[in-house]
Amino acid sequence: MKKFSSEIELRGHLIDSLILTKVFDGIMDHGGSFEVLDIQVGKKKKDESYAKLLVTGKNARNLKIILNYVYRQGATSKTQKNVKLVTASKDMVMPDNFYSTTNNPTQIFLNNKWVNVENMMMDKCIILKGKKAVCIPIRQVKKGDKIVVGENGVKITPPVRPREGMNVFEFMGSGSSSERPTQHIAKKVAEDIRRTKKSGGKIVLVGGPAIVHTGAVEAVSTLIRHGYIDAILAGNALAVHDIEYATLGTSLGMNVRDGTLAVRGHRNHMEAINAVFKAGSIKKMVKSKKLRSGIMYECVKKNVPFVLAGSLRDDGPLPDVITDITLAQKKYKEIIKDASLIIMVATMLHSIATGNMLPANVKVIVVDINQPTVTKLMDRGTWQALGIVSDAGAFLPMVAKEL
Amino acid sequence: MKKFSSEIELRGHLIDSLILTKVFDGIMDHGGSFEVLDIQVGKKKKDESYAKLLVTGKNARNLKIILNYVYRQGATSKTQKNVKLVTASKDMVMPDNFYSTTNNPTQIFLNNKWVNVENMMMDKCIILKGKKAVCIPIRQVKKGDKIVVGENGVKITPPVRPREGMNVFEFMGSGSSSERPTQHIAKKVAEDIRRTKKSGGKIVLVGGPAIVHTGAVEAVSTLIRHGYIDAILAGNALAVHDIEYATLGTSLGMNVRDGTLAVRGHRNHMEAINAVFKAGSIKKMVKSKKLRSGIMYECVKKNVPFVLAGSLRDDGPLPDVITDITLAQKKYKEIIKDASLIIMVATMLHSIATGNMLPANVKVIVVDINQPTVTKLMDRGTWQALGIVSDAGAFLPMVAKEL
Amino acid sequence: MKKFSSEIELRGHLIDSLILTKVFDGIMDHGGSFEVLDIQVGKKKKDESYAKLLVTGKNARNLKIILNYVYRQGATSKTQKNVKLVTASKDMVMPDNFYSTTNNPTQIFLNNKWVNVENMMMDKCIILKGKKAVCIPIRQVKKGDKIVVGENGVKITPPVRPREGMNVFEFMGSGSSSERPTQHIAKKVAEDIRRTKKSGGKIVLVGGPAIVHTGAVEAVSTLIRHGYIDAILAGNALAVHDIEYATLGTSLGMNVRDGTLAVRGHRNHMEAINAVFKAGSIKKMVKSKKLRSGIMYECVKKNVPFVLAGSLRDDGPLPDVITDITLAQKKYKEIIKDASLIIMVATMLHSIATGNMLPANVKVIVVDINQPTVTKLMDRGTWQALGIVSDAGAFLPMVAKEL
Amino acid sequence: MKKFSSEIELRGHLIDSLILTKVFDGIMDHGGSFEVLDIQVGKKKKDESYAKLLVTGKNARNLKIILNYVYRQGATSKTQKNVKLVTASKDMVMPDNFYSTTNNPTQIFLNNKWVNVENMMMDKCIILKGKKAVCIPIRQVKKGDKIVVGENGVKITPPVRPREGMNVFEFMGSGSSSERPTQHIAKKVAEDIRRTKKSGGKIVLVGGPAIVHTGAVEAVSTLIRHGYIDAILAGNALAVHDIEYATLGTSLGMNVRDGTLAVRGHRNHMEAINAVFKAGSIKKMVKSKKLRSGIMYECVKKNVPFVLAGSLRDDGPLPDVITDITLAQKKYKEIIKDASLIIMVATMLHSIATGNMLPANVKVIVVDINQPTVTKLMDRGTWQALGIVSDAGAFLPMVAKEL
Repeated sequence: MKKFSSEIELRGHLIDSLILTKVFDGIMDHGGSFEVLDIQVGKKKKDESYAKLLVTGKNARNLKIILNYVYRQGATSKTQKNVKLVTASKDMVMPDNFYSTTNNPTQIFLNNKWVNVENMMMDKCIILKGKKAVCIPIRQVKKGDKIVVGENGVKITPPVRPREGMNVFEFMGSGSSSERPTQHIAKKVAEDIRRTKKSGGKIVLVGGPAIVHTGAVEAVSTLIRHGYIDAILAGNALAVHDIEYATLGTSLGMNVRDGTLAVRGHRNHMEAINAVFKAGSIKKMVKSKKLRSGIMYECVKKNVPFVLAGSLRDDGPLPDVITDITLAQKKYKEIIKDASLIIMVATMLHSIATGNMLPANVKVIVVDINQPTVTKLMDRGTWQALGIVSDAGAFLPMVAKEL
Repeated sequence: MKKFSSEIELRGHLIDSLILTKVFDGIMDHGGSFEVLDIQVGKKKKDESYAKLLVTGKNARNLKIILNYVYRQGATSKTQKNVKLVTASKDMVMPDNFYSTTNNPTQIFLNNKWVNVENMMMDKCIILKGKKAVCIPIRQVKKGDKIVVGENGVKITPPVRPREGMNVFEFMGSGSSSERPTQHIAKKVAEDIRRTKKSGGKIVLVGGPAIVHTGAVEAVSTLIRHGYIDAILAGNALAVHDIEYATLGTSLGMNVRDGTLAVRGHRNHMEAINAVFKAGSIKKMVKSKKLRSGIMYECVKKNVPFVLAGSLRDDGPLPDVITDITLAQKKYKEIIKDASLIIMVATMLHSIATGNMLPANVKVIVVDINQPTVTKLMDRGTWQALGIVSDAGAFLPMVAKEL
Repeated sequence: MKKFSSEIELRGHLIDSLILTKVFDGIMDHGGSFEVLDIQVGKKKKDESYAKLLVTGKNARNLKIILNYVYRQGATSKTQKNVKLVTASKDMVMPDNFYSTTNNPTQIFLNNKWVNVENMMMDKCIILKGKKAVCIPIRQVKKGDKIVVGENGVKITPPVRPREGMNVFEFMGSGSSSERPTQHIAKKVAEDIRRTKKSGGKIVLVGGPAIVHTGAVEAVSTLIRHGYIDAILAGNALAVHDIEYATLGTSLGMNVRDGTLAVRGHRNHMEAINAVFKAGSIKKMVKSKKLRSGIMYECVKKNVPFVLAGSLRDDGPLPDVITDITLAQKKYKEIIKDASLIIMVATMLHSIATGNMLPANVKVIVVDINQPTVTKLMDRGTWQALGIVSDAGAFLPMVAKEL
Repeated sequence: MKKFSSEIELRGHLIDSLILTKVFDGIMDHGGSFEVLDIQVGKKKKDESYAKLLVTGKNARNLKIILNYVYRQGATSKTQKNVKLVTASKDMVMPDNFYSTTNNPTQIFLNNKWVNVENMMMDKCIILKGKKAVCIPIRQVKKGDKIVVGENGVKITPPVRPREGMNVFEFMGSGSSSERPTQHIAKKVAEDIRRTKKSGGKIVLVGGPAIVHTGAVEAVSTLIRHGYIDAILAGNALAVHDIEYATLGTSLGMNVRDGTLAVRGHRNHMEAINAVFKAGSIKKMVKSKKLRSGIMYECVKKNVPFVLAGSLRDDGPLPDVITDITLAQKKYKEIIKDASLIIMVATMLHSIATGNMLPANVKVIVVDINQPTVTKLMDRGTWQALGIVSDAGAFLPMVAKEL
């Protein structure tokens, strides 16, 4: 064995899920070289593959860089060492060289065995909590927390590319495009929603106010009423315009029924906000029968939880809006904790925020009229995201009709 | 009266249609000044207004520039002079200072009376043909043609902004937006189509291949079958993919029924092209019963004329495609000559080409998923254009359902 | 005089600034009619115009609707009545029929004289504070506040369309386009910046992280160092990536100097965040010389105030970030209070938020690569907004070079 | 060996270039299964890999489908058969089941040896011409031509993913993004241009009129003058606006020097067209010294060939424009025949057309302000395309400055 070399092992769908390609790429990109010591490609399609490589760097530092990289692709060292832990010196300060997480399932090698890290999210750190390893954000770091540093002793399971399924995620490998059969995609999305619910899955809708503007409130209300939506993540605007529409028939002053501008309509969203303040909250407004239809109404009636996160551009905002964004992030995380399917419609802010908190194995459907937005939201290093460049007001009613 | 001054008159909906604003703007932008000698604003809403201005330029040249500008806004000189004509010295060469047309109704002052110019299009010249004045493109100029030069003796009637109507064009003053109630707009477009046909109007569809990709062939076929479309302007791709879909079920190799990729699908559009070459033409392919459904089929069956214009990116192209673009332009112009409503769907090239040929008084509806495309197509100096940022595959079936 | 009629007066640049057109439109759109009792169009270009109209509604309610509308366009009743005030019954609850503000200069008629409303913003209410009238947001309403209701006794001064100036806002009447001479526009923007500073104006930059990604940090740093920027409004991301770039050379892990991906770069923005937490704040990080260049550094060095507003998608966020968005809104408002020019670069969230707080008379320049974003940001009912569809990394260095 | 099975072989960079992944995918997508009989992964990074698979289909037809698919990925049958040829029965009609080409290097197995196919383009057919195999479009098929049918006996060499180079194509694996360091990318593009010319390569510019509108004429002129551009492919509009700018200072009537609208500017592009018709051609206009600067001028002066292809939206078009698009396609093909680098700027039509004609091994750089356009143009199944979402008027001067 050469001096700056190390043996690594890889297991899984190395060819299908591009893991071997990424490992080869990474070694070469970083100026290293490799020798394939052993390779066993799964003989049949369900079989896993195995590879053992001797990785060589130009020097010790280079080898370390390469190993750091390949560990992130799911490689493990032949001779596994325990993870290294350093104590936080202050609240909200991580030690130097802290391990920054991915959104993939992660294990740490602790006392010579692999321990699962709970609550995985991207760009966080890993702390030890008793015998458990937990992923937490920097603002939750407390002085004295034991935090993982370096890349040794950390194992990632890269997402497996789904094969031979029946769901909507499979037929659109190449991501998103506006040139797809819209009606068919709507049907497939409806099937996926139905299947998810049947198997007891949790579906979360992340939505923006264009749902109201484009006339899709009835479609979403129907989905909630029929039990297809388990929680809603949104901001002030969706709730305000939904309530404006429910009480005054307009969305930002435009009559949704016919697209004309209402008389004095410019003040309608402020009137809706005022009405909620008067009632005290959305729930109280429903109770007092001032609010009798719409997305928020259906949520209250069906006990579907909703989290409204504040944003700098809010008017009001409504009393139900969580104006502190770190608190709002916490509430969002609680909602998505055990979600199976996230449907993101016409909101970049809330969708990106949600995406940042998601483990890689949650399925995501993105619907937006703007292609760059869809492209951006899809880019999460997962195989299970479906981008639909379409119009909420046209697409959601199609989905609702199929359910 | 000052030395470099001239009196002009304006008549019409000077306030409503922004004519007076534009005239004031133009005079000031060009460094001139004006005095309002007389103004009579229509007392009631249907009344026309009248204004007489004394326009003053910094010098003779400046005054001329200003007058040239205001004439284009519909102003006329108090002391009208005959139009000036110069003879073309060669085929396809216009004289210097030729008058370059707008797409508005235009008259020339000839032998002391106003003569209508026929066949108005933008960016062309005006020739005298016997006693008639005709608008022609440069390539049709013949040596010896009498061509209008300068801006004197030319009167334009700016488009009147429609008021108090019932149609879809009125409720969307601010042009296009993706934040509109889609289902309602679809209903309004359907109403406008029905009204146009009832009053004997001609409806022309300008369409791109995304109609096929997004699964809207059946919707368009229905519109044709029910007599709502009087002509189709398109390119090679719409016809190829329509025929590919009709004969093989795919559009560019994608199964339109479910969005999956067909086996050997990449060759399907070439197979469709080959099938038409084999038959000799689309019409012959329908006759021989090899083509039994789709947009092209319905056109042949209903005797709805279609013009397929060639483009540099064509595969094939089909034998029916007019590969010479000056000839294709001529055919397009014949089709739109007496159109009342043009519906442009998902094609920038053919839509801009058609827009260039249209007089300003033809109503235009633009449907495209890409907002900048819609914005660009709407910008024709007309009040009667409606932009819809939506998905052909979702929007057209909605329209068809309402008819 | 008919039964449901009322006389109104209009003064100002009625033709230039489209006020008369909008008043005519509004009356007709709402089903009313009008008679022009008197009109005097300014004889020369600087003269104001005057119009007296008799407005007639179909019934009392219709007349009221129409009057409400025309008052918003700057019309005043011939027989002015005092503004109506109603007392707030609870904290954060406005009375029914509260007057919802515009972003235009506004006066209320109180004790028979016009009183200016201070601190104008859009979609807020007006309260009486001693003898002063102040515009406040709903969350600042206190029980007992006297709040303006209805539309009577409120006068608005619509924005005057600027004429004959020298600045960059004038040559681009038609809003934004990607088909403009970029280098020239950069020069014009530079001139405007210089002129604004010369005349003692305050320039505020609203910026997003693409400034860092596209390599424009040096350009912005230069602008700050040379005193061209008086304050910065941004979010967590701009600061994080600026500090990441200053300390590690990367932006979201990409080496900005050459666009390659850095080794372990994915953790760099978390490392930058950790470094600020370790120092305690951005200012302390500059003091301790850990931060030695970049936008944040220059701000600290030059005492240029910055406000970092939290957003749901933040990593960290930095200790300097205001995580409560109502507080962040308040801080933003303090910054823009006396701004003359706002430059918005590559951030929709912070730009819209800022736009919502701006009175109509503040000049705004918007730079974004995405045309729909620019279009949306421009739509503030002002004549003084300039949209530039360009690339921050290409455009800002051009501007900096010209200064 | 099972009944519906066949042995295939694969050679090359099977892991790096994703070939093995695609083959596995395809077999499974089509419902087949496989057994890995042998696999030798290149031990070191430059080594090629080899794989032998036993592919099994559900039935004879299914196996054939699968084999057709894997052959297109570069697989070859263990027992190679000669290619099958069928004679064309008519001009412009290909036989049923004709082989539809890709843009990859292709060989056919003829008389028991592999013969290279010349002049590869996508979506064409292969004919035998003497002993040579040539790729031709359908309109060039002559009765009696021997045309390849089916997928047997055809071998493709998939594009190799470039490794360890120095050029601009390597650092941007993930395609295009607007969030890249613009100045650095401009420098890299300049380096690539210089390197290409040094090694004797041919550089072709495909450009749209936004080059003129955004003020990049001087930059492109400099590139031509210094010998960096070997040919220009464009349409009528680029030439018209370039000549309009050179002779009148405007582009579509806008003064490029300052972005203002010229007096009577609307007629300027027609005047430019008329000036060329008067001269007879662009070349004659240069000779007669009426045209003294700009892109077209530099081409004539430097003997850089240009092809102007007609399009349906052309005004004029200029006498130099090839109005028949099949002829224009032919001329385009002649130009790109031996090109090493194609730079596509701000034109979707001409860029897609050019892309359709290109073999996969030609490097392509795409510059456009609109991200979906860039994404669409990049999607050519090649590893050597670089998309830059930027502004021609800002980006090209940066490139020119670096050269």
